[in-house]
Amino acid sequence: MISKESFLFAHKRIKPFIHRTPILTSGGIDERAGCEVYFKCENFQKIGAFKARGAINAVLSLPERERNKGVATHSSGNHAQALALAAGLAGVPAFIVMPSNAPEIKKRGVLGLGGKIFECEPNQEARESMLKKVIEKTGSVMIHPFNNTEVITGQGTAFKEMVEINAALDGVIAPVGGGGLLSGTALAASFFSAHTLVYGAEPEGADDAYRSMISGKIEPSQANTIADGLLTSLGDLTLPIIQQEVREILTVSDEEIIAAMRLIWERMKIIVEPSGAVPLAGLLKNREKFMNKKVGIILSGGNVDLNRACQLFQSHSKTMP
Amino acid sequence: MISKESFLFAHKRIKPFIHRTPILTSGGIDERAGCEVYFKCENFQKIGAFKARGAINAVLSLPERERNKGVATHSSGNHAQALALAAGLAGVPAFIVMPSNAPEIKKRGVLGLGGKIFECEPNQEARESMLKKVIEKTGSVMIHPFNNTEVITGQGTAFKEMVEINAALDGVIAPVGGGGLLSGTALAASFFSAHTLVYGAEPEGADDAYRSMISGKIEPSQANTIADGLLTSLGDLTLPIIQQEVREILTVSDEEIIAAMRLIWERMKIIVEPSGAVPLAGLLKNREKFMNKKVGIILSGGNVDLNRACQLFQSHSKTMP
Repeated sequence: MISKESFLFAHKRIKPFIHRTPILTSGGIDERAGCEVYFKCENFQKIGAFKARGAINAVLSLPERERNKGVATHSSGNHAQALALAAGLAGVPAFIVMPSNAPEIKKRGVLGLGGKIFECEPNQEARESMLKKVIEKTGSVMIHPFNNTEVITGQGTAFKEMVEINAALDGVIAPVGGGGLLSGTALAASFFSAHTLVYGAEPEGADDAYRSMISGKIEPSQANTIADGLLTSLGDLTLPIIQQEVREILTVSDEEIIAAMRLIWERMKIIVEPSGAVPLAGLLKNREKFMNKKVGIILSGGNVDLNRACQLFQSHSKTMP
Repeated sequence: MISKESFLFAHKRIKPFIHRTPILTSGGIDERAGCEVYFKCENFQKIGAFKARGAINAVLSLPERERNKGVATHSSGNHAQALALAAGLAGVPAFIVMPSNAPEIKKRGVLGLGGKIFECEPNQEARESMLKKVIEKTGSVMIHPFNNTEVITGQGTAFKEMVEINAALDGVIAPVGGGGLLSGTALAASFFSAHTLVYGAEPEGADDAYRSMISGKIEPSQANTIADGLLTSLGDLTLPIIQQEVREILTVSDEEIIAAMRLIWERMKIIVEPSGAVPLAGLLKNREKFMNKKVGIILSGGNVDLNRACQLFQSHSKTMP
């Protein structure tokens, strides 16, 4: 369904609108990890997260007559801003259903990008029924945050860019929530760097992808973690790709996530959100698997409220041993 | 005394050992500033600050017979680590006098780079007398943190790199403590980009450079600011360069420094120390001076303890208006 050509088209389509984010390294982290680590800094991406890639690809690949009444989604996170950005580029409206308890900063982000917000009760059912109503009323097209082939392909372009710079990666680790980034990364690896082993990294408190890999079906997420970008379950498009192309899902505790996040902030002087620190936590917990290898890590985003980050650091004040 | 050739030699000398740091931009900050801002990210420099440039240049430009007994300084800050790094590159010992109340993380940084620490009472007199003793005992060479021509030249290479990428800068703003970075930047501008106006930026609670520009002599610093890298007075080498080459010193309050620091962290997803945020604070306070111009800012360093940064943000929780 998604071919090598899909990636080539997608990358060409979105290139004028995204940042080609830098790949950074840190001698201090290499030493601690026992391997060479290459960080793809999607925290510097437009809207502060890789989600811009998938949303822009999905909106721009819609035929004009399909998208001219607008696009819609429900999201409390980065996909909301990404879709508002993408719709603005296409010159069509974005209708975003957000739970009433979504952070003020995320709402302002969506509004600042020209998106229209519809508030609903903060539960899955209310989000879905509100979205249905909005779509019926506006005639807009639903853009799912991950269970959408164009979104998956767009997310995979981050790894394609890594390979273009460094073809020698032995492995790559991406965080996994709904699986858009991980399945896109895995497909991109299969087409552009077949020798690279692909790993997912996931919080123990939302280890549904780990369990889904074992059971072969979509397992529900307990959604009990500080990594608020990784709360969702896989979709029926992402699960089979991950099952086929991903070697293993590494799971880590919230303590390990915070320690890895602190390490990135302190050593690399860059800001990543908790979800973005999950792959490094997975790497540091599994040093023996990656010893002396070259490992890519996708730093998925940097959208964390500073006050919240400070609370996390203060409640877990120890650095990694 | 410092010529265009000094810069060419210095840059060639240190290039293999420093990072050519990136220049980043932010649409959100441009909008708020009313001009185009180019950030030279010396927070990503070796040891997390521009000080690596000057220290490496100073140590490597010493004849071997002068440096073979080692180099020495007193410092509680970034110059200590920079000198330890530089000495290690030259294969000579570094003797660092540090006040007993210096942060543990700075001490570990110096030790990790192979420096030898001599602790003293936390006052200027004790620091100087201890340094004198150490130099007498070891036969090492004192490398002053800023009042040293090779240090000044080394610091100026950061701006030389900016000009090589973007020759059209109308202005550049550097923070000023002892004046090594500012005088080096000003000389580099005079040689490589004569149309660029050079500004210093300084905390109101340590506005000795501002007062020295008026009085024409070295004024003492009140040292009353959270920008702990900018506490010192100018030196007899830096003052005349600054008087001749710098257009103006902009002064800002601690509140304005913290707000600018928060803006950089939130919008650019990178970590700067309070001193590194002083130039942006100066720019935002003087929008009319820079309206529609292209302005370079030197983000001098990123070495801030996360717990301390969090305390600063929490005690001044408002973002810029």
